Amino acid sequence: MVTLRKQYVVARPVYSEDSFADSNEKICRKHKTVLDHFKEYLTSEENSLLSCDLSSCDAKRAKNAVLSRLPIIGWMRIYRVREWLLGDVVSGISTGLVAIMQGLAFSLLASLPPSYGLYTAFFPVLTYFFLGTSRHISVGSFPVLSLMVGAVVTRLVPEDGPPANITEFVGLTQDQQRVLVASSVTFLMGIFQLAMGILQVGFIVVYLSDTLVSGFTTAAAVHILVSQLKFVLGLNVPGISGPFSVIYTLEEIFVQITSTNICDLVMSIVIIVVVFIVKELNDRYKAKLPVPIPIEVIVTVIACGVSYGFKFEKIYNVDVVGKMISGYESPIPPSVEVFQESAMEAFPIAIVGFAVAFSVAKVYAIKHDYTIDGNQELVAFGISNIFGASFRSFAASTALSRTAVQESSGGKTQVAGLISAMMAMIVTVALSFLLEPLPRSVLGALVIVNLKGMLTQFREIPYLWRRDKPECVVWVGTCLGVILLGLDLGLAVGLGVELFTVIFRIQFPRCSVLANIPGTDLYRDRKDYVQMVEPTGVKIFRIPSPIFFANTEFFRNKLVEAVGFNPLRVLRKRNKALRKIKQMLQKKDLDFAEGGLTDLFYSTTDDSNVKLELDLPIDVKDLPFRINWNADFPFKASVPRVDLHSLILDFSAVSFLDISALKGLKTAFKEFIRVDVDVYIVSCDAYILQKLHSCMFFDDEILTSMFFPTLHDAMLHVLERHKNDRIGDWQSKAAQL
Amino acid sequence: MVTLRKQYVVARPVYSEDSFADSNEKICRKHKTVLDHFKEYLTSEENSLLSCDLSSCDAKRAKNAVLSRLPIIGWMRIYRVREWLLGDVVSGISTGLVAIMQGLAFSLLASLPPSYGLYTAFFPVLTYFFLGTSRHISVGSFPVLSLMVGAVVTRLVPEDGPPANITEFVGLTQDQQRVLVASSVTFLMGIFQLAMGILQVGFIVVYLSDTLVSGFTTAAAVHILVSQLKFVLGLNVPGISGPFSVIYTLEEIFVQITSTNICDLVMSIVIIVVVFIVKELNDRYKAKLPVPIPIEVIVTVIACGVSYGFKFEKIYNVDVVGKMISGYESPIPPSVEVFQESAMEAFPIAIVGFAVAFSVAKVYAIKHDYTIDGNQELVAFGISNIFGASFRSFAASTALSRTAVQESSGGKTQVAGLISAMMAMIVTVALSFLLEPLPRSVLGALVIVNLKGMLTQFREIPYLWRRDKPECVVWVGTCLGVILLGLDLGLAVGLGVELFTVIFRIQFPRCSVLANIPGTDLYRDRKDYVQMVEPTGVKIFRIPSPIFFANTEFFRNKLVEAVGFNPLRVLRKRNKALRKIKQMLQKKDLDFAEGGLTDLFYSTTDDSNVKLELDLPIDVKDLPFRINWNADFPFKASVPRVDLHSLILDFSAVSFLDISALKGLKTAFKEFIRVDVDVYIVSCDAYILQKLHSCMFFDDEILTSMFFPTLHDAMLHVLERHKNDRIGDWQSKAAQL
Repeated sequence: MVTLRKQYVVARPVYSEDSFADSNEKICRKHKTVLDHFKEYLTSEENSLLSCDLSSCDAKRAKNAVLSRLPIIGWMRIYRVREWLLGDVVSGISTGLVAIMQGLAFSLLASLPPSYGLYTAFFPVLTYFFLGTSRHISVGSFPVLSLMVGAVVTRLVPEDGPPANITEFVGLTQDQQRVLVASSVTFLMGIFQLAMGILQVGFIVVYLSDTLVSGFTTAAAVHILVSQLKFVLGLNVPGISGPFSVIYTLEEIFVQITSTNICDLVMSIVIIVVVFIVKELNDRYKAKLPVPIPIEVIVTVIACGVSYGFKFEKIYNVDVVGKMISGYESPIPPSVEVFQESAMEAFPIAIVGFAVAFSVAKVYAIKHDYTIDGNQELVAFGISNIFGASFRSFAASTALSRTAVQESSGGKTQVAGLISAMMAMIVTVALSFLLEPLPRSVLGALVIVNLKGMLTQFREIPYLWRRDKPECVVWVGTCLGVILLGLDLGLAVGLGVELFTVIFRIQFPRCSVLANIPGTDLYRDRKDYVQMVEPTGVKIFRIPSPIFFANTEFFRNKLVEAVGFNPLRVLRKRNKALRKIKQMLQKKDLDFAEGGLTDLFYSTTDDSNVKLELDLPIDVKDLPFRINWNADFPFKASVPRVDLHSLILDFSAVSFLDISALKGLKTAFKEFIRVDVDVYIVSCDAYILQKLHSCMFFDDEILTSMFFPTLHDAMLHVLERHKNDRIGDWQSKAAQL
Repeated sequence: MVTLRKQYVVARPVYSEDSFADSNEKICRKHKTVLDHFKEYLTSEENSLLSCDLSSCDAKRAKNAVLSRLPIIGWMRIYRVREWLLGDVVSGISTGLVAIMQGLAFSLLASLPPSYGLYTAFFPVLTYFFLGTSRHISVGSFPVLSLMVGAVVTRLVPEDGPPANITEFVGLTQDQQRVLVASSVTFLMGIFQLAMGILQVGFIVVYLSDTLVSGFTTAAAVHILVSQLKFVLGLNVPGISGPFSVIYTLEEIFVQITSTNICDLVMSIVIIVVVFIVKELNDRYKAKLPVPIPIEVIVTVIACGVSYGFKFEKIYNVDVVGKMISGYESPIPPSVEVFQESAMEAFPIAIVGFAVAFSVAKVYAIKHDYTIDGNQELVAFGISNIFGASFRSFAASTALSRTAVQESSGGKTQVAGLISAMMAMIVTVALSFLLEPLPRSVLGALVIVNLKGMLTQFREIPYLWRRDKPECVVWVGTCLGVILLGLDLGLAVGLGVELFTVIFRIQFPRCSVLANIPGTDLYRDRKDYVQMVEPTGVKIFRIPSPIFFANTEFFRNKLVEAVGFNPLRVLRKRNKALRKIKQMLQKKDLDFAEGGLTDLFYSTTDDSNVKLELDLPIDVKDLPFRINWNADFPFKASVPRVDLHSLILDFSAVSFLDISALKGLKTAFKEFIRVDVDVYIVSCDAYILQKLHSCMFFDDEILTSMFFPTLHDAMLHVLERHKNDRIGDWQSKAAQL
């Protein structure tokens, strides 16, 4: 770094915004509105679905439109068979094994028979293969999403008690009813996603900040943990949904704790410990191992064998996967009545499903340098979920763990996804009987051991607390909200808390009074530095955030606090005194020729400086002298002394003003101007200045000459204007005339 | 205004934030956090309920506490009997007449028998007299509030069909059930208000901006209008509540339109026309009339007489007020079951009731120069509503129209309110039989004619659209939401829209690239002025709003757009080229002694300038030369040309950063720094700088020396640093060495 002892030398005229505009020619151009920017942001997403339909399509546009709708064409054309195919096949097989395991396990979260987890690992992948822009994500079940679907399932078809009053339920078994609910919810979720994709509103996931997602997934992990306890303990606890379901479920489990199936519990603990240790080893020796040890597949195979060999189901009364559906069932139409019952829940499912897939896809897109189109992803997932739901699979998104396997084992394109789907198909069609003796507690244990990553996010609390308290509030608020109120309602609460923290941050900012650093044109908080110059009679107040309806009043109070008096009150006191003076004048008992009063009044021909209007319409036009309000009055009148002649407001951080703010500022400025305090605004954004003009901010009291480009310009102007004032009493000079 | 042709002359060293800190001694002080400011804001409300209970109370504090809890003591001590009493009595009598009329009319909105409107004009006033801080508002029924209560009443006790399943309903008549519901909702509303007052959260009404309230009340007026149509037309339409109730009610009215009672309709039209005209005259000749003509009272008396004399009820089958309850009924306890059923509705009622009263009270407090304590008002209204509800009155707040009468007819204190309550009592106890022949259509007509003011607020739409589009969206969104979804749900929707507009405004701001105004230290949008200087190789990017999770990505895209290249992509391309160069070096087929390559490579001992890490961990430490990336390569390599050496970011409007923004900035800065672009930040807020330090923003790549106090300092530094560069290709000078 070179030395900084260079000189900063500037010599130019003092500019006000007006004089600056006079001496610098401006280019007239149409400024974009916030709406325009918003539109631009929307259309800046690489492909606009509507643009091509509406305008005349030439060949290139049509091609681009097709390409953006069918991203497969893009990557298939550049597919390097020799380089990529082997990787895709190997990756597809490993991912397939994981997808089968997860499909089985997550179907328990959705309160569905395990076969349908395998369906979810198959159908949605087929359509995503053609429509998805991500080449690396593994489409399929996601634990949080499965749990959200499960909450609707257990609400409409509870284990004990009658199902909801839905006509399509007639004649169906409980499992069939549940599958109908799950596929209908998934269908509706797909419709929502497709609609959002078509409407180009994929950007809404920006509102799910990292902090919010972290709190949400941690709380979801707690839900998942609690929901799996019954399998691990071999208890028969009904699925409970709705607010406080975690507490009710735990209560139910503790009531039944004495009926724990020891065989299930021991097996689960062994599996959790073994899988945990092997996963740690996989992590530690990542570099040395050619592929990570597929410990989950290994323990599942062992557990299947042991359970079959020792007849766990019969001897220890262990709950096993049981009869699997071999092959595929015919498609079913969704139930419109379920749509009506679950619309409020399907929407957050659609959002969460997309948000997870999009964030995972973005990570790998940045890593491998290609672009993800958020709206096309919405369309792809929407269609995939609609297609899958027609074939009885449930909500699909992606799981980070599975995607990591697919990418790290060499997957280059969605060909790997297709091969993993084929694996799931083979198991469904031919091998599902092998899984029938698998104890459900094994699946529960595997789900629990995979929660480690999500649960360790609790460590973020102290980190966030130290760095940024509002974000900590968002995290804790979201997490508690989701744990207590459930995933959908909790997400809404978290979103509300998050948006309110943003509002809060701009609503209660740190105001400061600035002063000059001697010998420079720099101004800093006067409390911060030892050597500061603050000219008498001038106050520099910095407004450090946008001004809008929620903080207009706050700033007014801060400003009154900073200047030390309430201008409206001063105005009224002065006006009362004025009334008294006028009365005395009429009574002729005020002889202003006498010496005692010359200090207070002086004759003047210029009375335009004191204006008292509106609030108190008396004025001094008919008075033969001007009044020095800071002198003592010869009668009892408590007019507060005002030692201020200029108030400079630093607007550099005011990024927008709304109409309430505009009205509030206008009122406040008038109050100051009427007690003879000049108000100056510096570093005001050009757009805000323009808005003030278009909103009739200026009148005969509030003039455009109050605007200055920099603080120092305004200060020089003020000093020049008041250079003849006596220190501490700027009006007395005039009084001496 | 004095001439501005003064000179602005500054000569000082060029400062970076580091060198500035070295030469200016700083005072160490604990900065307040956002939370502190928030707390301060809460406690800055004049009286803190808790402060005195918790700390040691001396006599003065105790006195203040009592004074703030019982504001009556404050104004009773200064009560000027001779000056004020007459005004209060006259005002009390006029207000009482209005209160009686409005009580009768608004009880129809609440779907209750008219007597209870008189109760509402009596009981809440008694407690407010002691507890309220406003001296001018007239406590009692408010149409919007009555309608909100009415929505609960008709939901729980519908006209046709069985009432809700509430045990307390057993053995009650429909009217008694309705009164129980109304008083229970009012009781709960009082509890909410009292709780908010005790918790000192009165400030939440700031979120109900003027625009929101305007949209809300306009929509409420539409609801009121529709609800009164059935009285005006003499139809028997059941009260409908819930979303789309306006549409259903209108549908029902149009179905029945042929059964219109012509007598009711004619009478209503006559009354509406007469009252409207007289009110206009009152307005026009305000100055000349001693008191406004009490036209509403006059038409009511006439209507009563005519209806009685011509036996309207019997002959024309007109719906009249009917049997009034003479005197007061015994208090009733609220129903806890109704609490449970209506908690979601009682909360918005509590908020709206308080917000209306507080805003009206504030207007008159400013006018008459005394302070309103929001939290004490909450306590006062809470207790008043609880007290009133115990005596079967319904939700009380204030009505602007009634308060205007009270103030303009000379009311100075709540003594006027007390006298108006006495009037209501007299009517209830002794004169209610006189009102029995009054047709309900007259009351409906009076309600409708008073909606004029609220309905003319529709004119705000074009006003807002021209001035501030987001506010127009808030207005229309709130209004449509309330009309379609009902008052409570619509209010929530409006609040959501309002908060989202604030987020939107800071999320999608106008970014700009700045350039220097020649001969000055001023920088403006380079598109705005004709004469601008933009030094080659330097880009100044202004970030015009806070940076947070929802716009981090937006700014990154804007920045990439402004500089014209994606630094990450450039970095990767360079790295690929570097790999090729290294391969060539190993193969020895790259002879860098040859002339053709001296332009591309040069020997160097200093290789610390080119760092390639993380994303692409290859570095140039083992290369014997430095690379000029902007020259042509002797092999095929598409390394984008980067003509930028310095990027200056203007942070003056960045009022806060969250952790997402921090991470995003860090990543973006590293990408630029790694492609040899120096990043500078200017005019950064002291608090943000401090936060960056505490959040470990700085490391060996991102240095504190990147901060400069002003744009011009940074620019002078950059120019000094690159003064030997050839124009347009700053590295080629070095390459020639």
